Amino acid sequence: MSLTLPPVEFQARVARAQARMAALDLGALLVTSEPDLRYFSGFLTRFWESPTRPWFLIVPASGNPVAVIPGIGQALMQRTWITDIRCWPSPRPADDGITLLTDALTELAQGGRIGMPMGPGTHLRMPLADYGALQSALAPLLIVSDEGLVQDLRAVKSEAEIALIRTACTIAGRAFDRVPQIAAAGVPLDQVFRDFQRLCLEEGADWVPYLAGASDAGGYADVISPATSLPLQAGDVLMLDTGLVHEGYFCDFDRNYSVGKPSHEVRDAHARLIEATAAGFETARPGAAAADLYAAMSAVLGGGTAPGRLGHGLGMQLTEGFSVLPDDLSVLRPGMVLTLEPCIDMGDGKIMVHEENLVIRETGPEWLSPPAGPEIPVLEDAS
Amino acid sequence: MSLTLPPVEFQARVARAQARMAALDLGALLVTSEPDLRYFSGFLTRFWESPTRPWFLIVPASGNPVAVIPGIGQALMQRTWITDIRCWPSPRPADDGITLLTDALTELAQGGRIGMPMGPGTHLRMPLADYGALQSALAPLLIVSDEGLVQDLRAVKSEAEIALIRTACTIAGRAFDRVPQIAAAGVPLDQVFRDFQRLCLEEGADWVPYLAGASDAGGYADVISPATSLPLQAGDVLMLDTGLVHEGYFCDFDRNYSVGKPSHEVRDAHARLIEATAAGFETARPGAAAADLYAAMSAVLGGGTAPGRLGHGLGMQLTEGFSVLPDDLSVLRPGMVLTLEPCIDMGDGKIMVHEENLVIRETGPEWLSPPAGPEIPVLEDAS
Repeated sequence: MSLTLPPVEFQARVARAQARMAALDLGALLVTSEPDLRYFSGFLTRFWESPTRPWFLIVPASGNPVAVIPGIGQALMQRTWITDIRCWPSPRPADDGITLLTDALTELAQGGRIGMPMGPGTHLRMPLADYGALQSALAPLLIVSDEGLVQDLRAVKSEAEIALIRTACTIAGRAFDRVPQIAAAGVPLDQVFRDFQRLCLEEGADWVPYLAGASDAGGYADVISPATSLPLQAGDVLMLDTGLVHEGYFCDFDRNYSVGKPSHEVRDAHARLIEATAAGFETARPGAAAADLYAAMSAVLGGGTAPGRLGHGLGMQLTEGFSVLPDDLSVLRPGMVLTLEPCIDMGDGKIMVHEENLVIRETGPEWLSPPAGPEIPVLEDAS
Repeated sequence: MSLTLPPVEFQARVARAQARMAALDLGALLVTSEPDLRYFSGFLTRFWESPTRPWFLIVPASGNPVAVIPGIGQALMQRTWITDIRCWPSPRPADDGITLLTDALTELAQGGRIGMPMGPGTHLRMPLADYGALQSALAPLLIVSDEGLVQDLRAVKSEAEIALIRTACTIAGRAFDRVPQIAAAGVPLDQVFRDFQRLCLEEGADWVPYLAGASDAGGYADVISPATSLPLQAGDVLMLDTGLVHEGYFCDFDRNYSVGKPSHEVRDAHARLIEATAAGFETARPGAAAADLYAAMSAVLGGGTAPGRLGHGLGMQLTEGFSVLPDDLSVLRPGMVLTLEPCIDMGDGKIMVHEENLVIRETGPEWLSPPAGPEIPVLEDAS
């Protein structure tokens, strides 16, 4: 229950990590962030919302991972496949696990270098002062970059992971289908946000970590704003973009709706976004680069695309891994899950964005989100 | 709308920071985390859920803060009181804002030291490799610890902040009152979790970043677990602990419920938890130390308290600042908001935890959550 995936899933992840670690000459791998720690252990809790306590997991060059964690997590970690669990009474600012972690790393790294995720999209989830103390305590052992090892492993999903993401997408799809029940001209946007999150929960989401969107005349200024209390108005394009979670795995896609009858511009823009998404989809095959997806979508969108990436990796985080950008040469492999997120410039500083989720198969792409059609859905007046 | 608090609130925060910076001989303050950046700017978005892009805000020794942020955030930042907004097209792994940030810091710090939060509860929210690159690029300028400056400022809330936290607490209180509508013997715990989040939204939460809890016979093993699909059973104690958000401010409290008639042990334990909370509350006056609250609650709970802290600071994060622990000598000041969270050992590895929220006033403590009574609420059988 606390361990959705079977131990064999985690054993395979560790084996893959250890093969890469050998090539990188790493004596141990140290992870501190929620997704990285969960990737190797299955430790799933919303308690990471509290920034107080650091959590550590060590993958040695051989053998099973070792958890070095606050005592408050012991009972839950014991329900995962991890058996070597070392705890201290946290918070203890004077030594919040640093001595325990230093001893464990010294024992497990056996004089080798210790790799940590340090590249784009990664964070050190422990106080910077404690990290400095750890480096000093470990000397002459060195902490070095994992050279993207963990991110690379996480990018290719197992069938079990793909199934979880597909379920998250399906739940969101059902919630999007019900938006006409909650949104119409006159309804405040913040009420739509609350109700949409309720729909996600009713349809089966465990929780809804991410919701953004906007509603404005003929387009919107950005895709990251929280809701205002302004009511929807005829002529608005309402966009809702959610990352809901099913058993620790995210979907990340959006839908646009026209409040009342859409203008020709809005209708055309929506159809073009769907066409661009389809062009990206057709390009999303093993061996293609992220940059190829960008080129395929840009060709449909014309030169006037708003700045920014047109998609990204997806999985245990809302966004992870590569970016669909002209200079991102990441090569697609079977099992990779990603979003396609074309953006169209509507003038006057406004944009429209569409987003879908897919998985790369040996034979080509496969939708995970239920793909939207070219016609923008219309929200009829409540009157 | 995107700026709930008036500019004068942020100006006062910056003025207080600059006074402390002068005492610490800092030429600039650099923050990278969501709450720290929002504290000085009012920049409120759930987009932080995406780990891809770093965000920076600089508080110079004098003058207004400068935002150095990804272009995707420009429109939203322009709706805050910040006027000096410097953007780059992120993600750009080869230089994800580091050159722009280096130039801004070099200009603003005027040769002085640059302080960053590095202590307990703080995190560096940028890739570690980029932080190393920043240090090198800034040399001979030094990055040093802010000595807890930002955390200290954030610990004392303004009246406007207290009002927001009170609203969050009131919303959660209404949701807790409705738990008998959604929970009874036979209902799976994960369904209760979904429905409780729905109640929080219906009662007015913007979102529900945190929910944990458990349901087990006569107590539960921990307070951080996600829900299982096991149905509630007569004799269970159901605990729900939520951190919901209203305009960027958290509540953090829980409620216990007896599924069917409580045992004497459960009834007594609940009453004792309420008594311990009251003892903590009475002690929570300006000049008292966090350790005094621990002693007051421990005296009621007896020697057998489970390990761990019995409360903590609260505000823009679910947990922040000091801990209610025997060795935490943080002194309470008017405006501090905190939780009291006594824990009682039920034997067999089980515990019960109660939690309330309060604010320290000149004249003494004041509840922010609607305090629970000694009688544990009973969930009647749905039969």
